[in-house]
Amino acid sequence: MTIPTVPAGTSLADVGEFGLIDALVALFPQGEHVLVGPGDDAAVLRVRAGHVVVSTDLLVEGQHFRRDWASAEDVGHRAAAQNLSDINAMGGTAHSLTIGLGAPGDLPAQWALEFARGFADECALVGASVVGGDLTRANEVVIAVTAIGACTQAPVLRSGAEPGQVLAIAGRQGWSAGGLAVLGRGFRSPRVLVEAYRRPEPPYAAGPAAAAAGATAMIDVSDGLVADAGHLAADSGVAIDLRSDAFEVPEPLHAVAAATGSDPLALILGGGEDHSLLATFDPGSVPAGWTEVGSVGEGEGVTVDGAEYDGPTGWTHY
Amino acid sequence: MTIPTVPAGTSLADVGEFGLIDALVALFPQGEHVLVGPGDDAAVLRVRAGHVVVSTDLLVEGQHFRRDWASAEDVGHRAAAQNLSDINAMGGTAHSLTIGLGAPGDLPAQWALEFARGFADECALVGASVVGGDLTRANEVVIAVTAIGACTQAPVLRSGAEPGQVLAIAGRQGWSAGGLAVLGRGFRSPRVLVEAYRRPEPPYAAGPAAAAAGATAMIDVSDGLVADAGHLAADSGVAIDLRSDAFEVPEPLHAVAAATGSDPLALILGGGEDHSLLATFDPGSVPAGWTEVGSVGEGEGVTVDGAEYDGPTGWTHY
Repeated sequence: MTIPTVPAGTSLADVGEFGLIDALVALFPQGEHVLVGPGDDAAVLRVRAGHVVVSTDLLVEGQHFRRDWASAEDVGHRAAAQNLSDINAMGGTAHSLTIGLGAPGDLPAQWALEFARGFADECALVGASVVGGDLTRANEVVIAVTAIGACTQAPVLRSGAEPGQVLAIAGRQGWSAGGLAVLGRGFRSPRVLVEAYRRPEPPYAAGPAAAAAGATAMIDVSDGLVADAGHLAADSGVAIDLRSDAFEVPEPLHAVAAATGSDPLALILGGGEDHSLLATFDPGSVPAGWTEVGSVGEGEGVTVDGAEYDGPTGWTHY
Repeated sequence: MTIPTVPAGTSLADVGEFGLIDALVALFPQGEHVLVGPGDDAAVLRVRAGHVVVSTDLLVEGQHFRRDWASAEDVGHRAAAQNLSDINAMGGTAHSLTIGLGAPGDLPAQWALEFARGFADECALVGASVVGGDLTRANEVVIAVTAIGACTQAPVLRSGAEPGQVLAIAGRQGWSAGGLAVLGRGFRSPRVLVEAYRRPEPPYAAGPAAAAAGATAMIDVSDGLVADAGHLAADSGVAIDLRSDAFEVPEPLHAVAAATGSDPLALILGGGEDHSLLATFDPGSVPAGWTEVGSVGEGEGVTVDGAEYDGPTGWTHY
């Protein structure tokens, strides 16, 4: 898809709300299930009877992204990935998304167009359409996304893990945290980690595959691995023990850890935003693409190698 | 529903993200169609096959509301009403909403709770549930809402009006603009208009009734009556003429106009945010609860009494 271009220096205020909306909408191809796309009071979708899965997230400049650390396209990819991943974590696949964009009048119009392009490209990875949106003035850039999806089997909740089951992970873990650590020190390499921070690559096929394999509980790692394992443990009323030697430490994480004097395992256990998935299965049921990294027991909380973990476990917003 | 209270002076930062989320979720009763409500990676809804209607809006403090002009509960009512009305304007009824709330750490936690109470109470008017949300730090208060609904007959678009049909309106019109004019001058009366600005009362039954009566096009008046009639005319490829004597001018609008030296008709024709509905029908098909206020002809644009209208027609965001 080609991004329309506007003259350099053209701001949102210059191009105007309605002019920009037309240009943005042109970047969003509509799937066959979309009877009415953007432009009316509401979008109209044709859905089959069954489970509709819905998730929403708000991204705020300075809090969730920095325009000097990531391109507009990257921010678009991340904003979409974060929401597509929530649907993935239920064992579903998103088919429709909405975007609310709040931005100062002096935001370059080109930024909004490139953001939309990145967003649309990420949605295309799972065949989802951007069916509606809203554009308004705000003092900082805020991005509100809602994703709607479908499950072909029963959705997998956070609450179904039982003692005796095993915990497994799908997707990269610690890469985004490594990239953030690099950027935070003013570096741009290892490039693969910086790219992982800018554009996470959630394992979109792994959610439905886990559901099909009988996963008993599942969660998207977005706050941090230990923190999110803790949410799963709390909602299921179980204890989880992680086996640190089960995590393969990729070479670039060794490099970052060496350069920053930190422990690569801390990036893996504390890192979020790769949108990897954690799920529990009966022993022997872990499907291809998933790696067994722990076990479910009686009790509560998360331990690492049987002991309390005292490293950083994730983040809170307040 | 009782609003939980927190000690005076308690901020969002004091109470923490997860503590506040628990208190908020307790304010949102879940309908029978909600299989999984807030708290998992995504909500899960059971829907019948058919048309799913989706709309999203972003409200920004200072732009769409002022905390000194409206209570937190009022802002909650308005934020919900605005989105419920978009579903109404398709001839549908919302069943599920999500909320994203971005706010500074020093926002009183009580504000968020009262906002949620107002939001939930407005949703209850149509039987809709708040099924998910997100809470994050932002420099200003931003509220992102997505509404999901169903139509029992074919959705009514903006694009179906044809020459020879009539234009009708349902709901109050100009009241919110009157309230805003009052507040803008530092007054608090006529109280009924100020209340109309703070808590619009969209005609939720009128949308489905219009669809059932065979409405050919419909739109929610949110930008301004002439502006939104213009959107309907443009999307349908027709001209619309409004008959100024068809609008009953309520007494409080006369009072505001007299006090501010303005024309009450200007408040009606330029006002938005009452979330009245405009729809077109075949002559003789206008259902109860709707008032005929104009006609559809060949051509383009909106006229008032056959002439160009040179008053304020609505608002743009940039």
